[in-house]
Amino acid sequence: MTESAPYTDISRLIAPRSVALIGASDRGETFGTRVFRQLCNFGFAGPIYPINPRATELNGRKCYPNLAALPETPDHVGIIVATERVFDVLEECAARGVPFATVYSAGFSEMGTPEGRERQAKLVQFSRRTGVRLMGPNCNGVINYVDAFAMASTAAIAGPRPPAGDIGVVSHSGGFGQISVMWRAMDIGLHISYEASVGNEADLDSLDFARFMLRSDATRVILMAIEGIKDGAKLLALAREAAEREKPIVVLKLGRTASGVRAAASHTGTIAGVDDIYDAAFRQFGMIRVHEANELYETAVLLRTGRWPKGRRAASAAATGGNIVQLADVGDTLGIEWPEYSPETQAKLAEFMPGYGKVSNPTDMTSLATGEPEKFRAALNAIAADPVIDAVTPIFAFLSRKDIEHGAAFVRECVKPAAMLWIGGCYDDRAFGPKDLVAAGVPVYRNALPCLRAVRAAADFGAFVARHRAGSDVPVRPADADADGARRALETLPRKLTEREAKQVLSAYGFPVTRERLARSADEAVAQARNLEGRVALKIDSPDIQHKTEAGAIRLGLQGDDAVRQGYIDVVAAAQRHSPEAKLNGVLVQEMASSGTEMMLGIVRDPVFGPVVAAGLGGIHVEVLRDIAYRIAPVTPDEAGKMLRELRGYKVLEGVRGAKPADMDALVAAIVRLSWLAHDLAGEIAELDVNPLLVFERGAGVKAVDALLVRR
Amino acid sequence: MTESAPYTDISRLIAPRSVALIGASDRGETFGTRVFRQLCNFGFAGPIYPINPRATELNGRKCYPNLAALPETPDHVGIIVATERVFDVLEECAARGVPFATVYSAGFSEMGTPEGRERQAKLVQFSRRTGVRLMGPNCNGVINYVDAFAMASTAAIAGPRPPAGDIGVVSHSGGFGQISVMWRAMDIGLHISYEASVGNEADLDSLDFARFMLRSDATRVILMAIEGIKDGAKLLALAREAAEREKPIVVLKLGRTASGVRAAASHTGTIAGVDDIYDAAFRQFGMIRVHEANELYETAVLLRTGRWPKGRRAASAAATGGNIVQLADVGDTLGIEWPEYSPETQAKLAEFMPGYGKVSNPTDMTSLATGEPEKFRAALNAIAADPVIDAVTPIFAFLSRKDIEHGAAFVRECVKPAAMLWIGGCYDDRAFGPKDLVAAGVPVYRNALPCLRAVRAAADFGAFVARHRAGSDVPVRPADADADGARRALETLPRKLTEREAKQVLSAYGFPVTRERLARSADEAVAQARNLEGRVALKIDSPDIQHKTEAGAIRLGLQGDDAVRQGYIDVVAAAQRHSPEAKLNGVLVQEMASSGTEMMLGIVRDPVFGPVVAAGLGGIHVEVLRDIAYRIAPVTPDEAGKMLRELRGYKVLEGVRGAKPADMDALVAAIVRLSWLAHDLAGEIAELDVNPLLVFERGAGVKAVDALLVRR
Repeated sequence: MTESAPYTDISRLIAPRSVALIGASDRGETFGTRVFRQLCNFGFAGPIYPINPRATELNGRKCYPNLAALPETPDHVGIIVATERVFDVLEECAARGVPFATVYSAGFSEMGTPEGRERQAKLVQFSRRTGVRLMGPNCNGVINYVDAFAMASTAAIAGPRPPAGDIGVVSHSGGFGQISVMWRAMDIGLHISYEASVGNEADLDSLDFARFMLRSDATRVILMAIEGIKDGAKLLALAREAAEREKPIVVLKLGRTASGVRAAASHTGTIAGVDDIYDAAFRQFGMIRVHEANELYETAVLLRTGRWPKGRRAASAAATGGNIVQLADVGDTLGIEWPEYSPETQAKLAEFMPGYGKVSNPTDMTSLATGEPEKFRAALNAIAADPVIDAVTPIFAFLSRKDIEHGAAFVRECVKPAAMLWIGGCYDDRAFGPKDLVAAGVPVYRNALPCLRAVRAAADFGAFVARHRAGSDVPVRPADADADGARRALETLPRKLTEREAKQVLSAYGFPVTRERLARSADEAVAQARNLEGRVALKIDSPDIQHKTEAGAIRLGLQGDDAVRQGYIDVVAAAQRHSPEAKLNGVLVQEMASSGTEMMLGIVRDPVFGPVVAAGLGGIHVEVLRDIAYRIAPVTPDEAGKMLRELRGYKVLEGVRGAKPADMDALVAAIVRLSWLAHDLAGEIAELDVNPLLVFERGAGVKAVDALLVRR
Repeated sequence: MTESAPYTDISRLIAPRSVALIGASDRGETFGTRVFRQLCNFGFAGPIYPINPRATELNGRKCYPNLAALPETPDHVGIIVATERVFDVLEECAARGVPFATVYSAGFSEMGTPEGRERQAKLVQFSRRTGVRLMGPNCNGVINYVDAFAMASTAAIAGPRPPAGDIGVVSHSGGFGQISVMWRAMDIGLHISYEASVGNEADLDSLDFARFMLRSDATRVILMAIEGIKDGAKLLALAREAAEREKPIVVLKLGRTASGVRAAASHTGTIAGVDDIYDAAFRQFGMIRVHEANELYETAVLLRTGRWPKGRRAASAAATGGNIVQLADVGDTLGIEWPEYSPETQAKLAEFMPGYGKVSNPTDMTSLATGEPEKFRAALNAIAADPVIDAVTPIFAFLSRKDIEHGAAFVRECVKPAAMLWIGGCYDDRAFGPKDLVAAGVPVYRNALPCLRAVRAAADFGAFVARHRAGSDVPVRPADADADGARRALETLPRKLTEREAKQVLSAYGFPVTRERLARSADEAVAQARNLEGRVALKIDSPDIQHKTEAGAIRLGLQGDDAVRQGYIDVVAAAQRHSPEAKLNGVLVQEMASSGTEMMLGIVRDPVFGPVVAAGLGGIHVEVLRDIAYRIAPVTPDEAGKMLRELRGYKVLEGVRGAKPADMDALVAAIVRLSWLAHDLAGEIAELDVNPLLVFERGAGVKAVDALLVRR
């Protein structure tokens, strides 16, 4: 599943004691000139060794012809040379015993050519062979504000170096990580601990850098802008550590709408998009997913306070009515609740708003709050103390500096996690703005959407941390799940499985399926139908006919010997007409399950995350509306329940048009069991559809009616 | 439907020749002090008359005891007095012949009390009786940058007055319009023509102010932040004028998630939310709807250039790969297309990017574009010239001021509508930023989402203008729609209609319905079933039993005399069991329509917009997924088609699982016809469900199987 390297300590890459730059220059505005200039100007305290055979001095520093000529072995070597020279230079690094090198040069897998991919593979082999750990190629290096070390070309770090902060940034793209995320984050008042633009990840990948940042005391939030990852298990390990340390990871995955072209035989496999799986993984692993660069740092403004609301119940107050209504609107779309205040809080607020009736949440304090900061703060404290409230987001408009600072003090000292929504300006100090407060550590937002998105993210992360502390994020295999039995069943079966054989595997694993038997003649069919009692379904049993309905080789609801006999003849005839060459095992005689809600469950293998479990309501919901939830297998019952509640059609399971509620417990158990099957038989099963799974009314369980299993 | 006043000329309210302020003060920080200070400081050239019986001079101006004492009749009088004194002061205005007054005082309908509502009604009566036109009450007045007149309390206009711009702002709430929209718009470099915070709208409403701005030469875009409107027809007239003048209206409706509690008998009526109807109206009327204050002015940054992309096909290029991928992602979610460049463009671009393969859109120019602004601009010009491209949004990162201005010149001079996405800074002039360019009229964005949202809005508005120019936005009544016939049918029928009677009305109007007849005995039922041929459905016909299925008083698919006879008996018995008191007309004998796609069409009456037509796929789609499209009646076939394409389940109509495509033309015609019925019988029909409407395969038409009509 993975070709990525295990985690390693990369401290000396990010904070080297000494550094060399091969390809340093001071002429023109070449890449080598820019990186060397930034390296010198950023304030690095250790020795910097420029290497360039055409110079003896650069920027007033002695320049060396090659690595061998250096007085010491640098911890980290930057490489900016023509593509074809990269390997020679790397061999010099290996010979000199250099532990870390960053290859800025391009011309590798990003070219999309066989030659480029071959070069990249050669880099991987080089690293594995020599032990020299590599950043890049085609990357833009690291920026380390904590130790004042930067080896990157970006103009975003020109000028005086800002202080180190608590935000770590990891990106594949240089311009994206350094400008769209890092520089823009600083532009709103945040400060950065480390930035890494990892490029093609021949050796060290984005997760290695994220883990370094996670483990540094400086970093409190990690922002990742990635095009993908190589190893799902490595991501899960990182996410668990993030929960352990209570440091949230906010992730922007670029390329989300790129269609995941997947050659698949099963329904689940055909429908599951690459991005659907990433989305499921981020959700399941407690990572906060956003969709544009600005959302990364905006979310960090609150997250870095390290305070997690216990739930999604927010409150707010303002002297401006329109903004209160908008806040409520935006919150509703984000799943933020605005509970009614408790009677005690109502009573306290009534003191501040005499003559008004019931005080609603969010609260329009009307002009009563204007020019009376003490009163406003007292009202906010009353709201924050209410046990039905988890987070407070007061709105401030156009105020004096004193009043704004009053508000900031409230946010900082509030008994509940709080963020300030400051929509206006400061009328007695026009230069004073949100950036000043953010720089001082106060969570301040300009607009309702990023503010409440951050509240939601903080609550979600808090919930994940709580689950992690309780150990309830770890799936537990059902006691009676018989992996060996299922594997043995699979071993005895042919390569291409029929419905009946797929269900034998499911059944061996303890998954409920319809009662059925194969009939090899009309007589056998009649006998088996009698045996099953009630109406039966007849389906052709052939490894060569997967779409039995399209072949017309299916008959439903038959009763009585004559009907069954004729059904057998018809089904076989239809199959022969449809596929004259098909091998026919016979006809499957199956009980007609009583009516229930149709679901589709499935397994698909993702190249990054391995086995994935899918669930959706059957038919149109899956095929037209693409209303499907995914999780990386295995899952906990809690996650399985969340999958169901994510479905737009969830209400169908609760019972509509007078239908009784479906057996949710049995359905959850089925998803959990299927996810363990996916996990346990990951080596054997590529794809699996259970479609339909019938879910009966509460207490009556579930049953797989049809199944399609594709081996790896 | 409406209690709002017709449009009137309010020039002298917004740009008075002289103004008086009753309740002006210079003590403390009261409302009267603040408004008077801003009025004096904003630079108004005409006479300002403060009125306050307790002062003889205010801010160095002569103060008058009352209106009668003034040397002339002011065009506009501001009123800031205790609620109970408002009417006395207004009578003075009427006596003096004042044409316009603004009531800032609160204590009217916003209180939510009977007393407040009564006061508001009295204001309306006063205005109607005297002809004095009123702004407010409970409002924050107008700010007019064009003529340097402002009568408003907000600190957002303190300090030097910025120049007049091209953006008009209308808001109900003062703080929202003046700070969250107006001040924030100026904070990103836009300038304002007029701002109006209209408060409770006793007389003049938001649409009056919007129309004034629309008609002023200064204004190019109107931003509205409203809690609702009172008169749908007035909104439509405004929207038509906006299209005529090619001045887009961007609207933020606050309170969108407030649940529209509606007491309704029909399905359509129960499901249709207040906000759904607004959403439909904005869409249908060519208004651009946004969801947060910042989106209003962000969208205006591009819209004010007055350039409309001919379609949604965009292109972009940048030297930063990550941002290109993000742009593509964001565009995809907004319905922006990124077409492949034509071969000619490909060839031209290949010259700038030697050695690269096929150039994709959006285009990663790689580092080739860095430091080579001429080359980048030439590439952008090649892209813009491509006939498959409607709009261009190049990305700029960290550049010199010269290069940024180069980019700005491209955007300004581009042959296609263009916007700049400037994600970074200016390295040789740190003070120079996007705000400077926006102030100079260049559409510049910081983030992909607002940029592409604006492109989409501009394309949508352009399409609406084109439809308006072609006259295709005006619905045309079907030639054979017999409104008189339908009305006559309705007149002969009882107050509470059965399914059969509702369908008689539909049928009289030319709407296709199932063949059916009422049977008053089992014998009649048998005779009628023979007459219809094929299988029949039997349904109880009773004005007292609307939910026939729940009553069990329905039998489907009956064939043969015996079955029909028994069915009749069963249906009557079930009805009697279910509702012993119900009046039974007999049993409806109905043809069993051949199978088709089930739709629900409906009519509901909206208090603001009048008759509304609704369409959704039947069953679960409507009931659980709430997948319904609405339009104000009547609609054009074009709008009806759009309704269908808005449905998430639209693909069902195109045919899934081997089903043939549905008769879309007949379905569109049915929606159009129903919308005209809604319009023509608006006085008679409150609600109507056609549920299900069966849509047969292409060429085979549609048929109403069941219907429920509720009279007004």
